[in-house]
Amino acid sequence: MPYLSIREAAEDVHSGMATPTELVVEALDRIDLLDGEIQAFITVLREQAYAEAEKAETEQRTGLYRSPLHGVPIAVKDIIAVKDVRTTAGSQVLADHVSLEDAMVVEQLRKAGAIIIGKTNTHEFAYGTYTPPTRNPWDLTRIPGGSSGGSAAALAANMCLGAIGSDTGGSIRIPAACCGVTGLKPTYGRVSCYGVIPLSWSLDHVGPLGRSAEDCAILFDAIAGYDPRDPNSVSGPPSRSAALLISGPEGREPLSLQGLKIGLPQDSFIGPLDPEVRQAWRAALLVLKEEGAEVVEDIELPRPAFEMYRTIQGPEASLAHMQKGWLSEKLDLYTQRTREHLLAGQRIPAVDYLRAQHERRLFSSAVRLALQRVDVLFLPTLPMPAIPIAQIDREILIEGMTKNATVALLSLTMPFNLAGLPACSFPGGFTADGLPIGLQVVGKAFEEATVLRIAHAYQQLTDWHHREISQGGMSSGEG
Amino acid sequence: MPYLSIREAAEDVHSGMATPTELVVEALDRIDLLDGEIQAFITVLREQAYAEAEKAETEQRTGLYRSPLHGVPIAVKDIIAVKDVRTTAGSQVLADHVSLEDAMVVEQLRKAGAIIIGKTNTHEFAYGTYTPPTRNPWDLTRIPGGSSGGSAAALAANMCLGAIGSDTGGSIRIPAACCGVTGLKPTYGRVSCYGVIPLSWSLDHVGPLGRSAEDCAILFDAIAGYDPRDPNSVSGPPSRSAALLISGPEGREPLSLQGLKIGLPQDSFIGPLDPEVRQAWRAALLVLKEEGAEVVEDIELPRPAFEMYRTIQGPEASLAHMQKGWLSEKLDLYTQRTREHLLAGQRIPAVDYLRAQHERRLFSSAVRLALQRVDVLFLPTLPMPAIPIAQIDREILIEGMTKNATVALLSLTMPFNLAGLPACSFPGGFTADGLPIGLQVVGKAFEEATVLRIAHAYQQLTDWHHREISQGGMSSGEG
Repeated sequence: MPYLSIREAAEDVHSGMATPTELVVEALDRIDLLDGEIQAFITVLREQAYAEAEKAETEQRTGLYRSPLHGVPIAVKDIIAVKDVRTTAGSQVLADHVSLEDAMVVEQLRKAGAIIIGKTNTHEFAYGTYTPPTRNPWDLTRIPGGSSGGSAAALAANMCLGAIGSDTGGSIRIPAACCGVTGLKPTYGRVSCYGVIPLSWSLDHVGPLGRSAEDCAILFDAIAGYDPRDPNSVSGPPSRSAALLISGPEGREPLSLQGLKIGLPQDSFIGPLDPEVRQAWRAALLVLKEEGAEVVEDIELPRPAFEMYRTIQGPEASLAHMQKGWLSEKLDLYTQRTREHLLAGQRIPAVDYLRAQHERRLFSSAVRLALQRVDVLFLPTLPMPAIPIAQIDREILIEGMTKNATVALLSLTMPFNLAGLPACSFPGGFTADGLPIGLQVVGKAFEEATVLRIAHAYQQLTDWHHREISQGGMSSGEG
Repeated sequence: MPYLSIREAAEDVHSGMATPTELVVEALDRIDLLDGEIQAFITVLREQAYAEAEKAETEQRTGLYRSPLHGVPIAVKDIIAVKDVRTTAGSQVLADHVSLEDAMVVEQLRKAGAIIIGKTNTHEFAYGTYTPPTRNPWDLTRIPGGSSGGSAAALAANMCLGAIGSDTGGSIRIPAACCGVTGLKPTYGRVSCYGVIPLSWSLDHVGPLGRSAEDCAILFDAIAGYDPRDPNSVSGPPSRSAALLISGPEGREPLSLQGLKIGLPQDSFIGPLDPEVRQAWRAALLVLKEEGAEVVEDIELPRPAFEMYRTIQGPEASLAHMQKGWLSEKLDLYTQRTREHLLAGQRIPAVDYLRAQHERRLFSSAVRLALQRVDVLFLPTLPMPAIPIAQIDREILIEGMTKNATVALLSLTMPFNLAGLPACSFPGGFTADGLPIGLQVVGKAFEEATVLRIAHAYQQLTDWHHREISQGGMSSGEG
């Protein structure tokens, strides 16, 4: 049976073709079958999921059908609080840390009827791009990306129907690209971070991963909204319409992109690209053009220095850990790499931090200016496909240029955390070796619907997002 | 002849009883007579003021009467740019620095018809509370307060009819209190800082000083408003009505304060007070009560640590000077005290800065919570009257407690820079030695009109704000 989308599962549940319990059983079976190798989950909520499925069925029998998420198994990244469940943040520091209440996004998922199937692995405290020990379902020797690597891998291996991640420098989009799923980083402040362990408050975003843009829209509609408990929450225009906006009246017709202007950042912003990634990007552009989109080449965009990002993120992360007392009381429980990052962040002078925030503001203004000429920017999510686990923290070669692997992984996603703009990564093809390639649409503030609409139109015309892994960790044809 | 208020001068100009040139002549005569001793001005714009007066008269003859500021001589602090005039910031670093355009507030003053009579002395780069070498017109051995000491002293000595200052930790209200004039720090972002040399961007406010609350309202109406050139500018409700709001239909009748709730911060917030200051505060309270205000005692308010203020202000100030290149190129031209402050600010770690900003946010929330119970807070501006110049940077004794003089001067004003709320200091009596005592009203965001209305009602019922200096620097009776 091909992997269900949330949309399809919702139709099945609504019509009685499938029950929530059946969806939970399927997800748990897949976990039992594959997660020993993939290691996407830190905690599987087996008993709770069955109980929630039963509750969803009872509700449905009494006429309460909550939303397209009713009875649908969703995984959440293990930096997000679920009441009475461990939130480990993928760290020994929090190995026994049980959350006392749900995060805002979990509250919202429950209101929408979703079933929390488990907590997925994250790079330790979301501070990294490769999420050990999780492996990429498409090739077990490769990284799933990070830091929401468990969420993306679980979804790619069909161990859940949707997932929630967080994105500080690309942590939703990088694993989405590596694992061949769709991920949305919303506008800054649009989804509450209440109950989510912070990495870097001025850059953190919470958002959905789904099999398709449509599934991301369904999840986004459920979790977006103003929350006074998050000091950075913003009240923008309501998001309830995203799922409708991206679909035609029948929900299945490709939408015309007539009138939409799609901008391509100039080469100096993009930097070196793996040839297969470049090819996929250009091929996808032709698809969007055929649907009526107007393409504007060579959009001028300054490239923010990685140092700017690190100078903002470093002290914000260190302070969060200092305030919890972890850095003083549990220093030896961190992995060496995280410990070194957090200690380095403590030493950054305030004037450097403020200068970086000032430069960030100039960069954000430049992006917003560019977005006055076009509706969205369109670019690859990563300069290369998922790298082998052996290449982590090494220098890698892209188009003849040597790059630090972490810097390369973040280079095309991190700028839009700095700018706080909505960005969606979706599968735009595969390499000859069968590795997924991620493409990225970036929109204006609060224009999540436009971003998703473009990804959705592309997905109505292609079927990369339907391709499935084989159980051995290899692609199993075109779905 | 008693000192004119802007309101009175406006009536005279409008009716033809006085001409702008006559107002300019009077101001320049006072400057010639007194400023040798008081040293309130860095630059007197003699020729320009005459030319502007002539222009104002020509406009009036052709039927163009711009506003109550038409033809009225106003002084501006010398960190505020006036086109083709030096902006020295009271520092050797900028001794020859000529501005190429007007600051936003100067543009606005000109549109309202005001005449810029000169640039007033400031504590070097607004980084201090006593403004050397300016002396207090009420007692030449005492400080005028700072950093807008020149503006307040010029006004107190009737060398101008109104003035513009800036306030990062109290720099409008401290000199207003020391010099017996009225000063308004508006809501953060309400008056543009474009063209004003920054001290500390997250704490800086530009605002008016006047002989009365009414005069402050006239000036505030002229200078408030959104300005896209200032990244921290905010667009709040329009301010044009402040001058109307504070006056009755005839503009002269005391307004009833019936229905207004005035909160007094609890002792732990206020700290030790000079007995004469405490007495003046309590006496003023009786006046407000008689006008119908309801008084709520013991409003709970945490007291922000001076260290929190310094940890925010320090690196912001240092970075501003680094970005201009002054700190690297002209280090030896700063006074020793400013140089030491700026170098110390460079060494503050980002985590300390971020922690202070976090604590600031908690404090701001507490103030806003307190302001849900009452309309305004009412407290002294300073714990003591203007201190002798000899006591600068020394320990002083207040109600048996030893305090650093600078910390004491900032203690009751700085909290409302942290909170970004509108605050007005107005004269509330005199000590037995004839020194003015400042009282302070603090309001909700964008409620400048309420704050000014209370000060105005008080001033309609008392005449402390009419008391004048004698030429020797002594009070000359009750005006």
